[in-house]
Amino acid sequence: MRTTIERRDLGPRDVLIEIRYAGICHSDIHTVRGDWGSVPYPLTVGHEIVGRITEVGADVTRHAVGDRAGVGCMVNSCRECENCRTGNEQYCFKGNTQTYASIDRDGTVTQGGYSTHVVVDEDFVLRVPESIPYEAAAPMLCAGITTYSPLAHWNAGPGKKVAVVGLGGLGHMAVKIAAAMGAEVTVLSQTLGKKDDGLRFGAEHYYATKDPATFEALKNSFDLIINTVSAPIDMASYLGLLRLDGTLVSVGAPAEPLPVPVFALFGNRRSFAGSSIGSIAETQEMLDFCAERGIAPEVEVIDAEAVNDAYERVLASDVRYRFVIDIDTLR
Amino acid sequence: MRTTIERRDLGPRDVLIEIRYAGICHSDIHTVRGDWGSVPYPLTVGHEIVGRITEVGADVTRHAVGDRAGVGCMVNSCRECENCRTGNEQYCFKGNTQTYASIDRDGTVTQGGYSTHVVVDEDFVLRVPESIPYEAAAPMLCAGITTYSPLAHWNAGPGKKVAVVGLGGLGHMAVKIAAAMGAEVTVLSQTLGKKDDGLRFGAEHYYATKDPATFEALKNSFDLIINTVSAPIDMASYLGLLRLDGTLVSVGAPAEPLPVPVFALFGNRRSFAGSSIGSIAETQEMLDFCAERGIAPEVEVIDAEAVNDAYERVLASDVRYRFVIDIDTLR
Repeated sequence: MRTTIERRDLGPRDVLIEIRYAGICHSDIHTVRGDWGSVPYPLTVGHEIVGRITEVGADVTRHAVGDRAGVGCMVNSCRECENCRTGNEQYCFKGNTQTYASIDRDGTVTQGGYSTHVVVDEDFVLRVPESIPYEAAAPMLCAGITTYSPLAHWNAGPGKKVAVVGLGGLGHMAVKIAAAMGAEVTVLSQTLGKKDDGLRFGAEHYYATKDPATFEALKNSFDLIINTVSAPIDMASYLGLLRLDGTLVSVGAPAEPLPVPVFALFGNRRSFAGSSIGSIAETQEMLDFCAERGIAPEVEVIDAEAVNDAYERVLASDVRYRFVIDIDTLR
Repeated sequence: MRTTIERRDLGPRDVLIEIRYAGICHSDIHTVRGDWGSVPYPLTVGHEIVGRITEVGADVTRHAVGDRAGVGCMVNSCRECENCRTGNEQYCFKGNTQTYASIDRDGTVTQGGYSTHVVVDEDFVLRVPESIPYEAAAPMLCAGITTYSPLAHWNAGPGKKVAVVGLGGLGHMAVKIAAAMGAEVTVLSQTLGKKDDGLRFGAEHYYATKDPATFEALKNSFDLIINTVSAPIDMASYLGLLRLDGTLVSVGAPAEPLPVPVFALFGNRRSFAGSSIGSIAETQEMLDFCAERGIAPEVEVIDAEAVNDAYERVLASDVRYRFVIDIDTLR
């Protein structure tokens, strides 16, 4: 459904971005359909946004008209709490202002990127390197940073064995980034259906989690497991795959609490952690890292009118690996 | 019940210890009563053992007759797996050989420290510094190392805020050790009943967990929480107390899996971890640390015939803070 939404007038620290592409994230679907609670309608979703800056406020110093720009999952934060002051605004104590369906500091509801333009505070705008194609840059702003951040934080790199659970939008970026960081990457997917893709993205090993032998063969193996799957997993089985001081990090979460057998944490002094997107500085670091290493997500560009069909395909896991809307088809 | 158990003949790498004191750990009670599964009877429990070495095998190099010695929760390991080879034998892939109710490499069932003598491989025997009273040294071998290890591993020290959940045998050692390491220590206990003790042990703050206001007041506060309580806790409430990159480490575990709301891990990039005793090298480090800082557990010395009464008092949490059996009363 096409509708007209209002963007705020450009403030002194705002930039106006003419949007070129917007990625489709699974959470767009959950949010807009109210699966995660009621949302204010009309609502425009989309938090993987790239385009060009066409206007800047009087006090803007970090961006200029003509720059290639990106906006990810958040557009503001309190800027006063301990986490905001230390550059971890994604973990703002008051909750960061999300790109859509959040109440911004001016009291308005934020609206996302399936849209021709967006006005964003310059501190929450990323520089998109010229070498990254526009349409490929979009999914980096959510799928890219959400996987880059825990990989960087838990030191994925040479000598480290990293497993990625699930080879979807997030998982395929996790594989590419972890491999580029120098880690030995294993994909743990339900079946071997996407094995060729996984190896092409940089994984050295690929196992089917439907096969119980996988959990026996890989016991005590990994330094880090990035779990991109939101459905509940059997924690005893997955924790058992971690070697000494290994960590299983979830970046997706089931709505219900996950039963964790604490004895599985005792062995090998294991940890179970969570990670949520990344800071703006880290997002910039991720974009620069991907540009330098020539890493980009696999995308399927669609017209705006195909969004509803794309949603059904995302829900059916029938996308390799991220849909990106060509916003020019919306003008 | 008094019975006669056999100790193996002294092997070339064994030492014979004349036991002087043995601490009573909650797990002795669970094990001997079969709460954690069936056990081979007759069984002598006790894994907080101190005494003097009266004989050494021909190839023993690390200990000598007359030395003050200690034995903790394990007496052997496979010595071949990755963890054993890297000095983390407590996390032996094949399971370390526990001090009692384990099958040792020679096929016999290990027997614990409520006993006049014990024969142990020298690699699993600790040196007990002269400045630590015998009876106080005993609980260090389990309660001491079980709390020292995670405090050291997760870098408790100056500038770090550490909370200790539960002020029992383990908890009171956690408070003393964390304070000696220089951390700012908070006790989280069900009530304020032991507040004076907690502050005397080195805590700066003491809160009652029965008061819901505690969880509001301490939100986003701690770098590290050591949970010494084996009963299930409300994970959302406790995880909410961790600041950025904080870790909640359980050293006690409920038998049933603990429901963990994954969203509570997303905030502040929190971790939930487990820790199991400590390595032999780390146990020696802990004894030396405690000797140097003048730290010792609070003990109540009892005669051997009072063990059953002591068990009832342990189960009723009526002990401040560890019972230690005077083994001379057993001879």
